[in-house]
Amino acid sequence: MSAFPKLLELISPPDRTAGILAQGLLDQLTKPAGSLGRLEELARHLAEVSGRCPPTIADPVIFTLAGDHGVVAEGVSAYPQVVTAQMVENFLRGGAAINVLARHAGARVVVADLGVAGPLAPHAALRSIKIGPGTRNMCREPAMTRAEALAAIEAGIALVESERRAGLDLVGTGEMGIGNTTAASAIVAVLAGAPVAAVTGPGTGLDEAGRRRKIQVIEQALLVNRPDPDDALDVLGKVGGFEIAGLAGVVLASAAHRIPVFVDGFISSAAALVAVRMAPAARHYLVASHRSAEPGHRHALAALGLDPYLDLGMRLGEGTGAALCIDLARAAVKLLTEMATFKSAGVSTASSEDAGA
Amino acid sequence: MSAFPKLLELISPPDRTAGILAQGLLDQLTKPAGSLGRLEELARHLAEVSGRCPPTIADPVIFTLAGDHGVVAEGVSAYPQVVTAQMVENFLRGGAAINVLARHAGARVVVADLGVAGPLAPHAALRSIKIGPGTRNMCREPAMTRAEALAAIEAGIALVESERRAGLDLVGTGEMGIGNTTAASAIVAVLAGAPVAAVTGPGTGLDEAGRRRKIQVIEQALLVNRPDPDDALDVLGKVGGFEIAGLAGVVLASAAHRIPVFVDGFISSAAALVAVRMAPAARHYLVASHRSAEPGHRHALAALGLDPYLDLGMRLGEGTGAALCIDLARAAVKLLTEMATFKSAGVSTASSEDAGA
Repeated sequence: MSAFPKLLELISPPDRTAGILAQGLLDQLTKPAGSLGRLEELARHLAEVSGRCPPTIADPVIFTLAGDHGVVAEGVSAYPQVVTAQMVENFLRGGAAINVLARHAGARVVVADLGVAGPLAPHAALRSIKIGPGTRNMCREPAMTRAEALAAIEAGIALVESERRAGLDLVGTGEMGIGNTTAASAIVAVLAGAPVAAVTGPGTGLDEAGRRRKIQVIEQALLVNRPDPDDALDVLGKVGGFEIAGLAGVVLASAAHRIPVFVDGFISSAAALVAVRMAPAARHYLVASHRSAEPGHRHALAALGLDPYLDLGMRLGEGTGAALCIDLARAAVKLLTEMATFKSAGVSTASSEDAGA
Repeated sequence: MSAFPKLLELISPPDRTAGILAQGLLDQLTKPAGSLGRLEELARHLAEVSGRCPPTIADPVIFTLAGDHGVVAEGVSAYPQVVTAQMVENFLRGGAAINVLARHAGARVVVADLGVAGPLAPHAALRSIKIGPGTRNMCREPAMTRAEALAAIEAGIALVESERRAGLDLVGTGEMGIGNTTAASAIVAVLAGAPVAAVTGPGTGLDEAGRRRKIQVIEQALLVNRPDPDDALDVLGKVGGFEIAGLAGVVLASAAHRIPVFVDGFISSAAALVAVRMAPAARHYLVASHRSAEPGHRHALAALGLDPYLDLGMRLGEGTGAALCIDLARAAVKLLTEMATFKSAGVSTASSEDAGA
């Protein structure tokens, strides 16, 4: 029996108490009220979500899920499909950008194979939850069956449950899958109600002719599959991917356990949008880490109602933006816990509301 | 005899070689070309400025300079002037936001008194280079004499020279001074040729009536002093501040020694603008850390031709934005030094220019 419907019922908005306490503490620290801007917002949000003031970041985990995409047969990526498997091996050796940035942020990376096409050498750190050897070509048929999509979501849920037992208290999302900007664009077009052309970008480096072909491929996939915009699981199954479904599960499980989720870029946001359409209250647990250079990302963020913290023109995925934002969150929490208050430092406060510097 | 004119002569654009080498290395790393966006730009810039590929960040130092402002007599800040001295003591005890964020970034904070009005208890870590007990009221007379402004610049230069002997290889700027957004607005209005109203903001929290009074005060100061926009030292002396002059010196000395300078927010950018008008090639050594919420900052950045890395609605000063960006720079450098290459990781490259993901 699936744990999924029961999990959805657990997702509700957080209690605001700890967030209010965090704001009260922030206003006593030796700085003009509000002058740390979005760092204050982030500290407050983490307190609210976790129900703890000050919040702690003891064991942040970035879930980097991998899967392949049958739609690559349509020539939507000039990178060969084998790169997905090669990059998973790179993740396991610690040589990819996500490894470097996660180490910088003091976060662990959990690498999982949700549906890589090629064979992967066994590795102690690799979570093998392969639902299939890549999705089917969504231009011709549904990428996944409904049962496969659900299985991938549940695999994502199981990853969070397992790491929660190991101490996880903050989640980052990441992915790897040649062809997955095509799937993410299709999902966002349907769920955000945006024109395909507006949410389809160059991915890892398509020229304008390549981008136009990618748009045609997505339009054909939508015509063939007719995903129901009011049924996120239908959309996910027909035009999504195994790793995207897994990330939707990661988001849902985290929200159910009141663990903040640092959403990475475009593909992660497509997964988060699927999750939020299944359980709208999951939105409260999301942090938009950064704004990707991929044009569809702004549509996904708007549909999620999220404002990203960083805007560095990145478009790599893997969880790299999430890692940078987790590092920023560590700074925000340290401000709450390490700064002196006006009282403890003997610093005078403003003599009125009318304070300049 | 002043070292200042000689120092200005030393400032020339960096050799581009190390930057080109850094870009070559970035393009071999296991990621689509350019996909790390501005992190790549930052790594390349640090290589170019320092002449080293990969660049190193072994001993970053944030110079947080303090000074008081006679113009507070006009009621431009409701925080009492004594807060400048109180915050310096807070810096020395390690309880301010800059201390927390500098520790997070692995940077040292050097605190210097360039002209605090009140008495400061002696402290081993405090650099006392007091030029005067606060500036004069610029609404009535020049804030500083030309000789005082020059002495403050030279004090900033001396700070960098001293820390360079201790190993400094990256500089951040920061400041503390009740009333110093008024001075910075006056400087930026003159040097960027912008209307006073456009570069004058709420500071630490003025309401609209307070902001209008602050605009009148600055307009009066410009009328009384008639600073010459073609003579940055004249502008600095008449409407600047001791800590702002000191930071101009920090920028000039760093540029002369080819040390990158992470400029903090609005006040630091006003100081950097003074420096760049004295030695235009100094601009190459600057990194705009963040965009302050203070509205004049965009005018200062535009005049400097700089695009900030972070935009978090911060408006605290002290060097807090510089600290966050130094942390980002550490991440950027680690990508250069720790990531695998396509060759070392056995990852296939794009089969053509026409690559998506």
